[in-house]
Amino acid sequence: MTHPSGLLDDVIHQRVRLGIMAVLAEADEAEFTFLKEQLELTDGNLNRHLQVLEQAGYIARRRSRLRGRPRTWIRATKKGSSALVRHLATLQRLIDQAKGTP
Amino acid sequence: MTHPSGLLDDVIHQRVRLGIMAVLAEADEAEFTFLKEQLELTDGNLNRHLQVLEQAGYIARRRSRLRGRPRTWIRATKKGSSALVRHLATLQRLIDQAKGTP
Repeated sequence: MTHPSGLLDDVIHQRVRLGIMAVLAEADEAEFTFLKEQLELTDGNLNRHLQVLEQAGYIARRRSRLRGRPRTWIRATKKGSSALVRHLATLQRLIDQAKGTP
Repeated sequence: MTHPSGLLDDVIHQRVRLGIMAVLAEADEAEFTFLKEQLELTDGNLNRHLQVLEQAGYIARRRSRLRGRPRTWIRATKKGSSALVRHLATLQRLIDQAKGTP
C-alpha cells in the first residue's frame, strides 16, 4: 500500500500554499492584505503562491474598489476546497500512522 | 498570533522527507531498501532527501554487511524525532483550525 506521503498533493502541500488554503477554508473570501498579514508574507511571495494555486484552479481572485482604492479578494474554488479536504485527510492519516494510532 | 503554517519546518515538511521521518517514527531503524519500497522512491531521490535530513541532524546512517552485501540502516536522531513530533503537532493544529474544530 502507498504510504500517505505518496498521496500528498505538492501544489497544496508547500508550506505557504497550505497556509493560504487553510485560511481560505475558514472564510468564504479573504482580502489580499488579510491573507498577507495572517501568513506574515510579502506581497511578492503571496502573489507568487496565489499564481500557482490559480493555475491549478484551486483559487479565484475578484477585484473591487473601496473608496477608490483597489482591493483583491481571494476565495477557494470548489476544486480547491475538495483538494484541501483530501489533503488534510491524508495528513491526518500520516499523523495517526506515525503516532501508532490505529 | 502566527498561523500554524508559519511554524512548519521546511526541512521536514517537504513531502518525501515527511514520509521518511514518518516511516522512521514507526521503526527504530529502517533499511535503505525498505524505505525506498515503502515510499516508492528511486535510489537517487531517497539519497538526496536523506542528505538534507542528515545535514539537519535529523537522521543517522549505519552501514553493515549481510552475507557480504552492503546494507545501510537509517534511524531518526533524538533531534529528528523531536522535530517530527513538533511538526505533526503543528500540522494537527492547522488541520483542526481549517476544519473549525476548537
